[in-house]
Amino acid sequence: MSVRWTTAVLDTSISGGWAVARSNQGFLLDGNGVLFSREWLKRQDLDVLCEHGIGHFDGEPVYLLELRSPQDVPGCTWQGLRQFMLQGDFDIFKLLGYAAQIGTWAREHRFCGSCGAAMTQIPRERAMFCAPCDLRCYPRIAPSMIVLITRGDEILLARSPRFVAGVYSTLAGFAEPGESAEDCLIREVREEVQVEVRNIQYVGSQCWPFPHSMMLGFHAEYAGGEIVCQEDEIEDAQWFRIDALPPLPAGRSIARYLIDLYVARRLGLAEPVLPG
Amino acid sequence: MSVRWTTAVLDTSISGGWAVARSNQGFLLDGNGVLFSREWLKRQDLDVLCEHGIGHFDGEPVYLLELRSPQDVPGCTWQGLRQFMLQGDFDIFKLLGYAAQIGTWAREHRFCGSCGAAMTQIPRERAMFCAPCDLRCYPRIAPSMIVLITRGDEILLARSPRFVAGVYSTLAGFAEPGESAEDCLIREVREEVQVEVRNIQYVGSQCWPFPHSMMLGFHAEYAGGEIVCQEDEIEDAQWFRIDALPPLPAGRSIARYLIDLYVARRLGLAEPVLPG
Repeated sequence: MSVRWTTAVLDTSISGGWAVARSNQGFLLDGNGVLFSREWLKRQDLDVLCEHGIGHFDGEPVYLLELRSPQDVPGCTWQGLRQFMLQGDFDIFKLLGYAAQIGTWAREHRFCGSCGAAMTQIPRERAMFCAPCDLRCYPRIAPSMIVLITRGDEILLARSPRFVAGVYSTLAGFAEPGESAEDCLIREVREEVQVEVRNIQYVGSQCWPFPHSMMLGFHAEYAGGEIVCQEDEIEDAQWFRIDALPPLPAGRSIARYLIDLYVARRLGLAEPVLPG
Repeated sequence: MSVRWTTAVLDTSISGGWAVARSNQGFLLDGNGVLFSREWLKRQDLDVLCEHGIGHFDGEPVYLLELRSPQDVPGCTWQGLRQFMLQGDFDIFKLLGYAAQIGTWAREHRFCGSCGAAMTQIPRERAMFCAPCDLRCYPRIAPSMIVLITRGDEILLARSPRFVAGVYSTLAGFAEPGESAEDCLIREVREEVQVEVRNIQYVGSQCWPFPHSMMLGFHAEYAGGEIVCQEDEIEDAQWFRIDALPPLPAGRSIARYLIDLYVARRLGLAEPVLPG
């Protein structure tokens, strides 16, 4: 994880420590940041769905208050997780990314998917349990593939209709049952741009808590085919020379790392480090 | 996937095709295999929970009948998925592995985990949906890490109390929220044997449908520490010389591939191919 932030399953019946509050508007924030005195936060009139002890920051216990709805707290605002990734302390982003995943898991596993009855939490584990169905539900992590396709001094970048105007990025997609990461890569590249690739090289992986992906990053060489964009998914895709790149994704993303790494290697520059 | 087996979301209102039947006892099997005439199978008195169109085998549509309970069908037996992996046609195993994952998904996502109400299937997608909660549930895939730790001509192998007597294998474990695959590897190795590693090298990945993992396979070099086995999880762990290995896991597993690949490289032999 990081030196400052480590995860743990803490007992919520013990008092004290820090707490973060999360709603569908993001995390509660004031001038001191996102970590509030837990006792103070619990005295505010928050509509708490559940509470989880999630780990230690600088050695202090941290709890999550997952709210049914966002509420006004004097002197505070709500800020989305993505903003925390783009700016500020990366250790805090790691903490909040974890908190968001635990909050999503807690929210989406209150009832058993097999019988509809209420589930109970297994003590000292991050697992919800339905005894009649013998079903255990751990936090969901969706493995996803992300790939930079290269052709010498050119790289293939695409933009989704959901991107910020002008920004181009690597191709990516969720793995489906039955696939290896490499199967997924080949399928997604075919679906999104109808291109074939070869020499698939794993580069690294990154937790991507939007809401709960593990991104598996690859470089792959272009092997053939003309770019044909997938309707509704890919607005445009082009080959870009590495000395004439368009606006790129945020610096802390594995998408940006895959691009920066390839460019650095091609130009003989120092290699960047994957934020993680 | 494979040349013979490709996945698809087929319309169950169209008649014809083949079907496989699955229960908690595995798949229905007769002298001709697991693929039955769908119309014939539906005329048997089976306690069907749901039906899904899952893909094409040799060009023919294949459906899954997911049963509430196993029933006797004259001339047929039930066989677990693991047996199909160990012996017989690997394309059929791929089909059944996929069917098992779709069956598990269908069984465990009938009700919304957020509100407990019945979910509905999104037409032409492998997704269950709860409109009031705006919650979509796709088949779960759990990313897992599997690693062979090496020290020159020695490799570290361990056995779980759940293994067949005498068999030793690589270390493995599920990723947790917030982790990269490499974070997971380092944590699991510390937890299971209290050893440190360096030079982590990705080798390949494999779908592992027991019940729904994606195994991310690595080699890593030993960096320090004495082996201390994790209570309840690791029965024994030892360094084995590559010319004096114990009984190993099944030939089609990525665990076995990681071992065979390292031994082949060390001895200068032809490298094995990862089944997938």
